[in-house]
Amino acid sequence: MKVAIFFGSASDTDTMKKASSVLKEFGVKYKAFILSAHRSAELLRQTITQIENEGFEVIIAGAGLAAHLPGVIASMTVLPVVGVPLECLSIDAKGRTSNGLAGVDALYSIVQMPKQIPVATVGINNAANAAYLAVEILAIKYSELKEKLISFRKKLAEEAKSNGGLGVEL
Amino acid sequence: MKVAIFFGSASDTDTMKKASSVLKEFGVKYKAFILSAHRSAELLRQTITQIENEGFEVIIAGAGLAAHLPGVIASMTVLPVVGVPLECLSIDAKGRTSNGLAGVDALYSIVQMPKQIPVATVGINNAANAAYLAVEILAIKYSELKEKLISFRKKLAEEAKSNGGLGVEL
Amino acid sequence: MKVAIFFGSASDTDTMKKASSVLKEFGVKYKAFILSAHRSAELLRQTITQIENEGFEVIIAGAGLAAHLPGVIASMTVLPVVGVPLECLSIDAKGRTSNGLAGVDALYSIVQMPKQIPVATVGINNAANAAYLAVEILAIKYSELKEKLISFRKKLAEEAKSNGGLGVEL
Amino acid sequence: MKVAIFFGSASDTDTMKKASSVLKEFGVKYKAFILSAHRSAELLRQTITQIENEGFEVIIAGAGLAAHLPGVIASMTVLPVVGVPLECLSIDAKGRTSNGLAGVDALYSIVQMPKQIPVATVGINNAANAAYLAVEILAIKYSELKEKLISFRKKLAEEAKSNGGLGVEL
Amino acid sequence: MKVAIFFGSASDTDTMKKASSVLKEFGVKYKAFILSAHRSAELLRQTITQIENEGFEVIIAGAGLAAHLPGVIASMTVLPVVGVPLECLSIDAKGRTSNGLAGVDALYSIVQMPKQIPVATVGINNAANAAYLAVEILAIKYSELKEKLISFRKKLAEEAKSNGGLGVEL
Amino acid sequence: MKVAIFFGSASDTDTMKKASSVLKEFGVKYKAFILSAHRSAELLRQTITQIENEGFEVIIAGAGLAAHLPGVIASMTVLPVVGVPLECLSIDAKGRTSNGLAGVDALYSIVQMPKQIPVATVGINNAANAAYLAVEILAIKYSELKEKLISFRKKLAEEAKSNGGLGVEL
Amino acid sequence: MKVAIFFGSASDTDTMKKASSVLKEFGVKYKAFILSAHRSAELLRQTITQIENEGFEVIIAGAGLAAHLPGVIASMTVLPVVGVPLECLSIDAKGRTSNGLAGVDALYSIVQMPKQIPVATVGINNAANAAYLAVEILAIKYSELKEKLISFRKKLAEEAKSNGGLGVEL
Amino acid sequence: MKVAIFFGSASDTDTMKKASSVLKEFGVKYKAFILSAHRSAELLRQTITQIENEGFEVIIAGAGLAAHLPGVIASMTVLPVVGVPLECLSIDAKGRTSNGLAGVDALYSIVQMPKQIPVATVGINNAANAAYLAVEILAIKYSELKEKLISFRKKLAEEAKSNGGLGVEL
Repeated sequence: MKVAIFFGSASDTDTMKKASSVLKEFGVKYKAFILSAHRSAELLRQTITQIENEGFEVIIAGAGLAAHLPGVIASMTVLPVVGVPLECLSIDAKGRTSNGLAGVDALYSIVQMPKQIPVATVGINNAANAAYLAVEILAIKYSELKEKLISFRKKLAEEAKSNGGLGVEL
Repeated sequence: MKVAIFFGSASDTDTMKKASSVLKEFGVKYKAFILSAHRSAELLRQTITQIENEGFEVIIAGAGLAAHLPGVIASMTVLPVVGVPLECLSIDAKGRTSNGLAGVDALYSIVQMPKQIPVATVGINNAANAAYLAVEILAIKYSELKEKLISFRKKLAEEAKSNGGLGVEL
Repeated sequence: MKVAIFFGSASDTDTMKKASSVLKEFGVKYKAFILSAHRSAELLRQTITQIENEGFEVIIAGAGLAAHLPGVIASMTVLPVVGVPLECLSIDAKGRTSNGLAGVDALYSIVQMPKQIPVATVGINNAANAAYLAVEILAIKYSELKEKLISFRKKLAEEAKSNGGLGVEL
Repeated sequence: MKVAIFFGSASDTDTMKKASSVLKEFGVKYKAFILSAHRSAELLRQTITQIENEGFEVIIAGAGLAAHLPGVIASMTVLPVVGVPLECLSIDAKGRTSNGLAGVDALYSIVQMPKQIPVATVGINNAANAAYLAVEILAIKYSELKEKLISFRKKLAEEAKSNGGLGVEL
Repeated sequence: MKVAIFFGSASDTDTMKKASSVLKEFGVKYKAFILSAHRSAELLRQTITQIENEGFEVIIAGAGLAAHLPGVIASMTVLPVVGVPLECLSIDAKGRTSNGLAGVDALYSIVQMPKQIPVATVGINNAANAAYLAVEILAIKYSELKEKLISFRKKLAEEAKSNGGLGVEL
Repeated sequence: MKVAIFFGSASDTDTMKKASSVLKEFGVKYKAFILSAHRSAELLRQTITQIENEGFEVIIAGAGLAAHLPGVIASMTVLPVVGVPLECLSIDAKGRTSNGLAGVDALYSIVQMPKQIPVATVGINNAANAAYLAVEILAIKYSELKEKLISFRKKLAEEAKSNGGLGVEL
Repeated sequence: MKVAIFFGSASDTDTMKKASSVLKEFGVKYKAFILSAHRSAELLRQTITQIENEGFEVIIAGAGLAAHLPGVIASMTVLPVVGVPLECLSIDAKGRTSNGLAGVDALYSIVQMPKQIPVATVGINNAANAAYLAVEILAIKYSELKEKLISFRKKLAEEAKSNGGLGVEL
Repeated sequence: MKVAIFFGSASDTDTMKKASSVLKEFGVKYKAFILSAHRSAELLRQTITQIENEGFEVIIAGAGLAAHLPGVIASMTVLPVVGVPLECLSIDAKGRTSNGLAGVDALYSIVQMPKQIPVATVGINNAANAAYLAVEILAIKYSELKEKLISFRKKLAEEAKSNGGLGVEL
């Protein structure tokens, strides 16, 4: 019941932490790696083999821009790969600068994978949902996780009442 | 002459207040609920039944991202549902982060409803217009509202003169 | 219980007929007019006044390209205006030619109306939904229409069973 | 080792058959249902409960336009839901007409699901990849499927040689 | 040799000043009006008639969102109308909020005018170019303006040398 | 009272004929040239000089793809340049193939000209509107053209009555 | 003076032939390979090594959808890689079906490569330009190619005269 | 082994410095020029001729908005031209204002060049990649550069290990 998390740049750490938080919440073990599909392809390949040997069962991969990382990983393994399109921002002297495409480039580069090599894509910057999806996938095998998910959903529904579901000032 | 306002998250409160302000201005009563189409579907269904029984006549629903809330409500009732696509922003350590699609995702998810289950869609973040539309809808039944709308439009036209309509420095 | 239908060009007739079919189905009377917001603004204004005097209660307006018609009508009346963004295609020697924007131009030109003058926008080419929405609006005043809508929704739900809802070959 | 396939309209049958073909190829059982999130919500809910009771483990859901079906199903179950955005075309007297958004509306409506209720999204019209992903998910539990996937990948790699991988006329 | 400048909201004043600055530079007289196509349609019509009577020869109109103003003016006059699509931003408690479409909505609403009623569209927020275009249009009639334009272009070319055209540190 | 028409490829002839038809209708003389901003830059420069010497007063330029032609012409002259973004289609063995951007590339490449060198942009493929705009520009100098434009607008308004403006079957 | 051409599917052969035609025209030798970045990664790597050993100097790679091929090749070599984004169409019973993104997905997936691993991107489906670019690159080393390019450009400029550059009927 | 760098405005200096930094790193000489395709076309032409005479072998050109500079340069020379689409931001009283298109306009204006006159396009604001590409192009002629590139790639792969490639806290 282990998930491997990959992303391409240390600057994505904050966003990807939303995934590890969820995994912790559900008691799912994970390891994280910062690796590039292009700059460190060989080490990436070795690491995928290694995590397969160590019994990891789901992979989460976040990437921005042309965002090849999830698809390249998917070509190296038959484990399900969950892809997180990341918006890519840098900070210049005058404040923030985007790359102009704000995550849409990453979304298209991840979701439009060719036939036979799918990536399970979630929303832009939505690393939390990548983890929830990983938990749902693991839960088809590990019944204790399924129980936790069902409880979690019930809790969400119950919390709705105290969070404005019975009416709120406006 | 009552309008129910729904939205999915407390963080949308400021935007949705633009709707309640307009309703107050026209003396239309309203109730507001924070409910999710996905996390609290059962409570949502109960609440829709309840407001129908209490004689509410128009529903306003604001949502961001995949923005299913207005359409899901529309499937639960034959009351007219006015949908407000919301831009979804969060605040990270370095300032604001968008989800990369800036409300276009919500717009498409609301306006492109399938045949037979329409949602009356207004502009992105334009909760005020949702309320003006709700008032126009109610006004086909309540003639006092129609009078108010006609006066309001006249006032707008008159104010134009003092607001630069007769010429302005540039 | 009368709906006025406006559109800008005879070439949109087929698409707009999807609206009149639905209105007939619900026994709602309607009149249709081909008028341009720009080429026949004066006649448009007169016609809006006339239909208001004749007791029309909802307006449906379909338009393509810059699609000003629904918004211009909305500025002339306080009746609720339902806008249908139309894709604009012409047929050249080599087959069909679009204007390159395939209805997105019309969608933005209709839904993004400024504060105070809303248009209730439905999906691209979805004139049927404009009529369903018009019926829902009228139904808050005319209870017989509300009954029909509730029966119609029940019928849809029942038909689902024989239309593959209980399982289908694939 | 069973997959349930849902889609909203009989006109999507051809596209969704690409999913069932792949499942057959891998010896995975499936059932298919044509159901709408909005027109037959109650029957949809019953069917989800039923397939859960019958031991289905993954759900594939295809939808076009506002495309709420995958997300609404995801809110009803903790089984992993794979969403297929569908381009929505109809055929008028002059040939084909699109809804102007060509599947991008469906993509955004499926992939941008809110936190906690993920949908595993694949490419536009790419129902085959939905099935490959479903097989990968099942393969973390059923080792015979994992073997088949590994063989399948090897076969793809081998076929590459005779399909132009060693050079081709141009 | 007079240009009338129209725009819909006092918040656009800073952007539209870029137009008046250019007109001053070329010695072209202008008047400016803040008027809405929808909220003050009657006063707009009167003002167009008045400026025609006063001998104005070109109109510049800036608008955001659905941006009907330039097109509606174009329908009221045969004077050439130059349209400036404006990005529409407001400032909320947490900083700036856009309407999610960042001027693309305005661009499409202005440039895609139907046959026979053109608007001469310039770039998003590029009110300066609207004024340069107005000057070029007037220059086909007023030869002194043409001289000024030719000198201006020469000056631009000459300044290039001292502005890095002969080489710059990098 | 002469207009020069430029476009980059013989395949655009049909679309650009919509411009010459309008000019003929208004009795405006024109010459047309097929020239590329990139492949025949020198001849283009000479031709611009020549038409200036011959007293041409407005230029229409249509272009597809990166669509530099209108902007490059605008940099060579102070005459007003009207730009027509063209959708670029070719016909392959299986039917039509687009370049994937359907005229949006051309629109952005024409309308977003930098400060000081404007192009008066009209809608995608809308060469007719380029000609109407050229006529409006000439009309500020040639009063007979202004008369014709006013008559033309009146005729459009009158024809509206017989074209469905007084009501139409639907 | 050899160019290697890669593309992912036999269905792209017609489009990629536009590249080989240009190379033949300039007397540049080439070899072509149909290989997938995901399905035949190992053979791709071997082939890249092999063509490097055989002295190939430029690589052209065409790909559609998520379009990783050019970027993955670029990560395997320091030879310049020219990427061609391909529109991806298939033919169903009712005619053609696109993947809804018409080449924009491929464009973003190719051009937005991360820092340090560039791909020289040309226009959608524009394989001819990939070859012209390859020839320009080789021409910095092979002076005979440079001569040919200069002659070719001169010929283009000369042909302009007989192709409508001196005026054409419209 | 010299590269010429062109860009249109002093405000792009910071972004274009990313190109010169990379060139310095590889010991490639360069000169930089701020020149506009439209405002200083004649000086641009002279400068291109001059740098050709001085033996420059690759050109990098960055431009925003309609972004004609790279394409216009490409029409003046047969040297390979690398184009960098730039996002265009200005700073108003209330903070930053974009032109609404955030670099997509520049991307389309550069990459969609017509047949025969290619521009090697890199990602939005990605001037560093323009330089890496220039180095790769020069490296087919200068073997010492090729060695440096190979070492550089090796160093990137090695650094991956200490940059989180062997695992990182999350």
